[in-house]
Amino acid sequence: MTNQSRRQFLSRGALLGAATAAAAVSGPAFSGEMPQKWDETTGLLIIGTGFAGCAAALEAHYLGAKKGDIMLVDKMPTPGGNSIINGGVVAAAGTDMQKKDGIKDSADLMYNDMLKSGGGLSHPALARRIADESVANYEWLRDKVGVKFKAVVYHGGHSVKRSHATMNNSGSGFVLPMLEKLKEFGIEPRLRVIVDQIIMNDKKEVVGVKARTGYRFGKENSGKVVYIRATKGVLIAAGGFSQNVKFRMSQDPRLNEKFTSTNHRGATGEMIMEAQEIGANTVQMDWIQLGPWTSPDEQGFGVAPLFVESTVGYGPMIDPETGKRFIKETGNRKVRADAIVAIGHPCLIYTCEANVMGEIVGRNMTEKLFDHAMKTNVVRKFATLKEMADFYKIPYDQLEKTNNTFNEYMKAKNDPDFGCQFFDNSKPNVEGPFYVVRLWPRVHHCMGGLEINDNAQVLSVRGEPIKGLYAAGEATGGVHGMVRLGSVAVADCMIFGRIAARHMMKN
Amino acid sequence: MTNQSRRQFLSRGALLGAATAAAAVSGPAFSGEMPQKWDETTGLLIIGTGFAGCAAALEAHYLGAKKGDIMLVDKMPTPGGNSIINGGVVAAAGTDMQKKDGIKDSADLMYNDMLKSGGGLSHPALARRIADESVANYEWLRDKVGVKFKAVVYHGGHSVKRSHATMNNSGSGFVLPMLEKLKEFGIEPRLRVIVDQIIMNDKKEVVGVKARTGYRFGKENSGKVVYIRATKGVLIAAGGFSQNVKFRMSQDPRLNEKFTSTNHRGATGEMIMEAQEIGANTVQMDWIQLGPWTSPDEQGFGVAPLFVESTVGYGPMIDPETGKRFIKETGNRKVRADAIVAIGHPCLIYTCEANVMGEIVGRNMTEKLFDHAMKTNVVRKFATLKEMADFYKIPYDQLEKTNNTFNEYMKAKNDPDFGCQFFDNSKPNVEGPFYVVRLWPRVHHCMGGLEINDNAQVLSVRGEPIKGLYAAGEATGGVHGMVRLGSVAVADCMIFGRIAARHMMKN
Repeated sequence: MTNQSRRQFLSRGALLGAATAAAAVSGPAFSGEMPQKWDETTGLLIIGTGFAGCAAALEAHYLGAKKGDIMLVDKMPTPGGNSIINGGVVAAAGTDMQKKDGIKDSADLMYNDMLKSGGGLSHPALARRIADESVANYEWLRDKVGVKFKAVVYHGGHSVKRSHATMNNSGSGFVLPMLEKLKEFGIEPRLRVIVDQIIMNDKKEVVGVKARTGYRFGKENSGKVVYIRATKGVLIAAGGFSQNVKFRMSQDPRLNEKFTSTNHRGATGEMIMEAQEIGANTVQMDWIQLGPWTSPDEQGFGVAPLFVESTVGYGPMIDPETGKRFIKETGNRKVRADAIVAIGHPCLIYTCEANVMGEIVGRNMTEKLFDHAMKTNVVRKFATLKEMADFYKIPYDQLEKTNNTFNEYMKAKNDPDFGCQFFDNSKPNVEGPFYVVRLWPRVHHCMGGLEINDNAQVLSVRGEPIKGLYAAGEATGGVHGMVRLGSVAVADCMIFGRIAARHMMKN
Repeated sequence: MTNQSRRQFLSRGALLGAATAAAAVSGPAFSGEMPQKWDETTGLLIIGTGFAGCAAALEAHYLGAKKGDIMLVDKMPTPGGNSIINGGVVAAAGTDMQKKDGIKDSADLMYNDMLKSGGGLSHPALARRIADESVANYEWLRDKVGVKFKAVVYHGGHSVKRSHATMNNSGSGFVLPMLEKLKEFGIEPRLRVIVDQIIMNDKKEVVGVKARTGYRFGKENSGKVVYIRATKGVLIAAGGFSQNVKFRMSQDPRLNEKFTSTNHRGATGEMIMEAQEIGANTVQMDWIQLGPWTSPDEQGFGVAPLFVESTVGYGPMIDPETGKRFIKETGNRKVRADAIVAIGHPCLIYTCEANVMGEIVGRNMTEKLFDHAMKTNVVRKFATLKEMADFYKIPYDQLEKTNNTFNEYMKAKNDPDFGCQFFDNSKPNVEGPFYVVRLWPRVHHCMGGLEINDNAQVLSVRGEPIKGLYAAGEATGGVHGMVRLGSVAVADCMIFGRIAARHMMKN
């Protein structure tokens, strides 16, 4: 309703007779502008083309939705959102790939890892859903979507290796096959479409949106207004708000403009705000994860994380000023990021060539990416520890001591100092050359977001489902609690995107 | 607008012609039901009669508001909210009372303590306001309100003693003089008035509320609907949501119905939700403080906290199963509460009679309350450590060892194990009798809440002030960050209640 039409309306006192006699109700009485006519009508309106949005669209197709009943929109000029630049690993507990590698895993073990790292804040019903459906999701990706997997790798905080890596070490390894399948089914994302308002009817059901087509990111008034009706529901799969400095600072005032982000520039969180404006609840919004594995020697997510996540457990993380270790290398992301921020300058992680060539390159990181990392000096190589110490001005005596002690711990598979976890195939760091990365955290993932139930329905501040409104992925909160474990969010996006599609298909 | 009238309206398509031509705007288009006529009109509508609400009403009076221009409402049958059962200490940094006790303090020191305990989440501008105005607020309480202060006491996490205690060790020592003053000025709280909706006009300004008079707490449909117009603004001073199990569990799923609360039963947070429903932002909602000093041997806030907060630094906190210390006794509330929850059963804190009679009874705790605590066995007395060990089944050898070590640390004023802070007048625990309290945490304070700026204006999810809407005290978030220091919230309530009144008086 425009202000003008409302003013006309409000001046018509006669119509308002019923107002004072109304029962005491709470909640937003009306939100969004109900259009005179809808410009377009669809069944499922899916906002965002990352893991959650694509998975939802595919699931709806497999459940029999006609192609005109699935509308997938994205405000950016290219599809894939932040997912397409993601590290390309999905958590699954109990797969054939794990069994082949001799890894014993189960949904219960994954659930317990999630709850432990969540520090008590994880919503158990949501974590349970992800752990329980992780293997089915991995098989769906492999069999229905055609994703190719390369290896099962380790990410800090998990009890076992359960992160299933795509061939190209990138989220595009998931998103591109999904987009191809969608194209095959006649469903193509509509780009440069930004949603400005969620529209509810007088029964407080979400019935559509006000949007703009031809929107150009960065030109905030660009595009043409359209009203899109959604008969089966609206799914917010539009990601988090890592790139929205003002919004993230309201929750965590430390994260000012001096902190950069690993995310694509469109991660600005408007859809969360728009849902809040129609009375949706947000939870745990101040848990904004810093990636502990980004390098100050490159921008964005970069290639350093691929190296680092396979180096933890294979070599020590040290403070170059002291030459000493300062944190459990296999600790969760928050533990590590906070520890690096606390020392106040970038730290180093290194390991020897035997580990790099055996466990990292060709496994978690392609040779091509490794070459790129070497050429750009994100990874540096030193023939000896002494050369490394000289380059970074590390006290050499202490570095040698630290290295020897760490080697002893590796052999004994026991770290009495920090509790680092070791793997069977790790080799002590005796023979050079050594490969080193500098680390400084970057804003990476918003653990908080819209509150949903385990049908992916968005809940109001009163705790009731808002009919017709769904959310999945980084736009939601509660799944991860305090600390998200690597590769779990990818599973979260896909699993809850698909759950949302299943529920919408019943509407 | 009622659903009925809206339906009538929406059927009138002709009126809606302007809708599709509207500029792209965001935000809730309309909230609350605009009444045909207002039943009552006031200047400042203040919701809540605790520290924040009473302070705002008094400040408005002192700034020249006429008595008909100040309306103070409360949903409960008695005034004072949770404040009236509070511990009765207000933080102030640099007062005459501190100087008399030889305590060196400053606004900067208090600000730094607040930011440190806030763990980086405190909104600096809000913390700064409190630290800067703390002495003026203390003097206002003393000189304008007539509050009588007894002593300056220590609360964990502060650098120095700066918690100014009322004569009766209760928040009623603040609230009752405030209510008396208000009565003197002809301003009496209207009780059993619950606010159901905040009403905005078409310019998105808050212009009043829909409420019910004659409401009976617990009878959710009771009372008669009234529309109250507020020409200068609406202040939400209605407290937190510690008693709302569903709402608090959405943020922290651990805090189920098995956790009791120190709060009065009306601390159910509806006003926060109602502000959310018109697009207000909430921040840091998952930081819900557990009080580490409540005893399982009594209900609610109880008397144990008065004893405990003066015993920290004077005696050890031990795990009865091991007889060992496990945490820094003078650590902040979160550190202590988490440590007790982690051991999984109640712990003990004790000190000798010389400390109890010198430092606790008659200072932080009246003799009457101490007698009550002894009679109800909240505090127990044992002639010797051996008797105490036998009663609680503590391994005696270890208890003796722990006690001797703690005494050595007290003498050296240095605790290498946990960093406990000691005071000049503390006496080693050598001679009995010993006084003991059992401790188990209880839900105590919601650090998160509505986002405000330093004029106490509520901010929208877009980060803009919502014109006409203010909030102060526990209903707001950002002041305390992760951990609230004892007695700072009382200052927060009063200072931001008064700031809100000052800003409303300019409207």
